Amino acid sequence: MELSQFGEKLTSKTGILQLMDDLGKAMSGKEKMYMLGGGNPAHITQMEELFRKRMQEILDNKDEFERMVGNYTTSQGDIDFIHAVVAFFKKTYGWNITTKNVCALTGGQTTFFFLFNMLAGKFSDGSSKKILFPLVPEYIGYADQGITDDIFTANKPIIKIIDEHTFKYFIDFESLKITKDIAAICVSRPTNPTGNVVTDEEVHKLLDLAKKHKIPLMIDNAYGAPFPGIIFTKTNPILDDNIIYVVSLSKLGLPSVRTSIVIAKEEIIKHLTSINAIVNLTATTIGQHIVTPLLQSGEITKLSQTVIKPFYQRKSNEAIAYLQKHMNQSNPYYIHKSEGALFLWLWLKDLPIKSMELYERLKKRKVLVVPGNYFYPGFRGKWKHRDECVRITYSQREEDVKAGLKIIAETINEAYNK
Amino acid sequence: MELSQFGEKLTSKTGILQLMDDLGKAMSGKEKMYMLGGGNPAHITQMEELFRKRMQEILDNKDEFERMVGNYTTSQGDIDFIHAVVAFFKKTYGWNITTKNVCALTGGQTTFFFLFNMLAGKFSDGSSKKILFPLVPEYIGYADQGITDDIFTANKPIIKIIDEHTFKYFIDFESLKITKDIAAICVSRPTNPTGNVVTDEEVHKLLDLAKKHKIPLMIDNAYGAPFPGIIFTKTNPILDDNIIYVVSLSKLGLPSVRTSIVIAKEEIIKHLTSINAIVNLTATTIGQHIVTPLLQSGEITKLSQTVIKPFYQRKSNEAIAYLQKHMNQSNPYYIHKSEGALFLWLWLKDLPIKSMELYERLKKRKVLVVPGNYFYPGFRGKWKHRDECVRITYSQREEDVKAGLKIIAETINEAYNK
Repeated sequence: MELSQFGEKLTSKTGILQLMDDLGKAMSGKEKMYMLGGGNPAHITQMEELFRKRMQEILDNKDEFERMVGNYTTSQGDIDFIHAVVAFFKKTYGWNITTKNVCALTGGQTTFFFLFNMLAGKFSDGSSKKILFPLVPEYIGYADQGITDDIFTANKPIIKIIDEHTFKYFIDFESLKITKDIAAICVSRPTNPTGNVVTDEEVHKLLDLAKKHKIPLMIDNAYGAPFPGIIFTKTNPILDDNIIYVVSLSKLGLPSVRTSIVIAKEEIIKHLTSINAIVNLTATTIGQHIVTPLLQSGEITKLSQTVIKPFYQRKSNEAIAYLQKHMNQSNPYYIHKSEGALFLWLWLKDLPIKSMELYERLKKRKVLVVPGNYFYPGFRGKWKHRDECVRITYSQREEDVKAGLKIIAETINEAYNK
Repeated sequence: MELSQFGEKLTSKTGILQLMDDLGKAMSGKEKMYMLGGGNPAHITQMEELFRKRMQEILDNKDEFERMVGNYTTSQGDIDFIHAVVAFFKKTYGWNITTKNVCALTGGQTTFFFLFNMLAGKFSDGSSKKILFPLVPEYIGYADQGITDDIFTANKPIIKIIDEHTFKYFIDFESLKITKDIAAICVSRPTNPTGNVVTDEEVHKLLDLAKKHKIPLMIDNAYGAPFPGIIFTKTNPILDDNIIYVVSLSKLGLPSVRTSIVIAKEEIIKHLTSINAIVNLTATTIGQHIVTPLLQSGEITKLSQTVIKPFYQRKSNEAIAYLQKHMNQSNPYYIHKSEGALFLWLWLKDLPIKSMELYERLKKRKVLVVPGNYFYPGFRGKWKHRDECVRITYSQREEDVKAGLKIIAETINEAYNK
């Protein structure tokens, strides 16, 4: 079957789809696998109880359930939800926004597909523009989202060694060039896969660059503040006409309601709403209804701070301690400073085998991770580091995480010794 | 702000978005409007009670609610749902399909966006292909879905007068040419906006053409058989390697769960699943969970036949009778034979004003309809008929429909008299 360029681009078995196939096949086998590869948020009892209570409230609140599933909203989102988002961000951060600055879409993945392709790619004057990731590694899910080729470019970070087995990435502003073909800058914060949190200072520098070049700065806040709050450093989120702020309900524990929120200047929201009307008609409403009163009461911030964040911080600490215990300390391995998100990012400096080979060996031993080389959307340079990292999810059940980590450590120790 | 071609194309204020803006503004005023313009399905008590019961069952069924909102499914859909769909269509129509022939996506709108752009548009060899609508008027929501220009082409139908004030469209197979640049054929059945049901004979002829030219035939079954069953003629849905069959949960009364089902050959499902992974990650799961046991028990067909279909058939009959009563019978107006969907399609032959002007006059009198000229995606010819039709929704509350229809009839009678 012949496919259009769009069809070819979005179905070609480049990295991610191939990897997903491979992971899918491994998972569908009969043997137990330790799934430390995926991004599914944990099932946190207190959050689950709350969502269950909310759905019961919706059922018990006159015709709210019938309106929720039975009425189309506008392409901007449910009007009560939009109002609740505005009031919440005004109150939480003092942001001076109105309902014209907010829309609800079908999840972060969809949102970035819209944003990337609306701002970058081919232009009608024949020129092309790119989205710049000022720091890679970045989210694997961005990599294939361009409907035209070469929609991304990326900058190598600075690596700072923090202690014997810990490091952190920083944006290399010296090498960061905003050329004329850069349509926008994008960072996930905290970063999937590394758990890095770009500092407030770095964000301000990026914003200055964005302003100077009159381009937007997109901040993917899927794990960040104020909710779900899986961010272990202190940050002060800022809003500006040049910032496009994307929030998601997924990591609260609601990935399958597929709901994201965009906060940006009116023009951006208008464009996204138009695209949403044409591509999706409207967003699904269930997540919006579940969360609206939690925004109105501010409970969502409290839960993020007192339930979600401590949960993941504890999981992260335990995973690091357990991994360190089993790793041969004389090897030059480094764990990225865990500042947020659901992952440990392991840099295996000078490992004799590439991360793809490590992935294969681990798969044979029933542990699934994601090889690090996939997390470089738009990066074209050669860099040994790219093949020296793996992403490990620590959000799953403790016994599975521990069993998986032990095998990972043993496999790495062996590989260093050969 | 500069936008890419994708951005320009999907945000340009062509017909539909402008109309939606206009309708939105009219609706947001303080005065009561009779909304006979939209496509929201009716709230049918028996269906509402069922969906409410299903959600309560999900809450009461161990951890089903937690799995439903808290676990990502694969990009193909929830595995239990996919199995239920396969078994249902095997049992209902004897279709020889497996789980490899089915996927769940985020609603019909999203599904056709994927299909149209994956099959038509620009190709890497520099050529372009189009989607052919063998019969216009067709669904307004298709019109802007091409990410490149001129992705659609359309054929003028044959008009058959059935009685003094009734007509029906048929496909004009004599003028229907499948040129080399046709990527696929697409029909909605029943058709939004006309309530036309392309006959079984016409479908077979289209399929023969599709097979001969080795292109797919897409059937948009949003209103059709076996569910939601808003189809008043007897049809025998067929499946074939060349047919892409798209079903939706919206018109069961669940528009805001945003769930569609595609049944097609394995290659198509694989491509759609890939595109879904990149654009949306996965579909939302709530609709899939609500409907799974209704598919397993076959209750969904029974409800479609005994509740949904009679409900809309009665509404349609009442609306036609009421409209006829108020229309001046000496005028040469025609109502399309109502064979399904939620709309009356009125052809006002030789009306001295165009349908856009009629729309404006009705808006001033607090009645919203959709002018017919918007329902010609890909049609480039001149045709007076195009400006002589309006779409009227009859799914809303009886008193509103009646009040609106009375004003519509009076306004049309006046316009004919001037």
